[in-house]
Amino acid sequence: MSSQNILDIDPIIHAPIRLAVLSILAAAKEAQFTYLKEAVNASDGNLSTHLTKLEDAGYIKIEKTFKGKKPQTTCAITEKGRKAFVSYVDNLEKLINLKKGDS
Amino acid sequence: MSSQNILDIDPIIHAPIRLAVLSILAAAKEAQFTYLKEAVNASDGNLSTHLTKLEDAGYIKIEKTFKGKKPQTTCAITEKGRKAFVSYVDNLEKLINLKKGDS
Repeated sequence: MSSQNILDIDPIIHAPIRLAVLSILAAAKEAQFTYLKEAVNASDGNLSTHLTKLEDAGYIKIEKTFKGKKPQTTCAITEKGRKAFVSYVDNLEKLINLKKGDS
Repeated sequence: MSSQNILDIDPIIHAPIRLAVLSILAAAKEAQFTYLKEAVNASDGNLSTHLTKLEDAGYIKIEKTFKGKKPQTTCAITEKGRKAFVSYVDNLEKLINLKKGDS
């Protein structure tokens, strides 16, 4: 393994809650805030902080709309986010597969 | 995915440098400090801090010996460390494979 593999682990994605959110959005394209909150078992504030970090990186888009009188927040993965996620997974697999080849 | 998958991501292993060290030790059983340092591209102090964290968790053993007059530090993965690593990889794959089934 070169040290490059380690440096390539995208820290924006690597935090477990953000990794979980991005995994869901990579699979489902978009999801409601309330769904994500339950899926990743986070508080409103905690999830919001992580979503903002993903949005600031350009990995997701967040849209606030109304369903009747109820506000709803929809999160969707961007093309940049999808590419970053695929690259993250590849780099992580390279790092981990080290062990598989040898043991 | 249940929220369990996220909570199961072992934070001791999840830090990129510790993940890299444990991947190497899972493959090679043991390695010299100097080898690890180069492989993960860390400073002495930074690597020591991470190794201590892995040692405190019981995931590795650190042994200081002499080779002639030169001190050398050997790190080896423990059975507990190997189990934790395998479990970490399984949990991470579950989290990430979400995306693979659907896209």
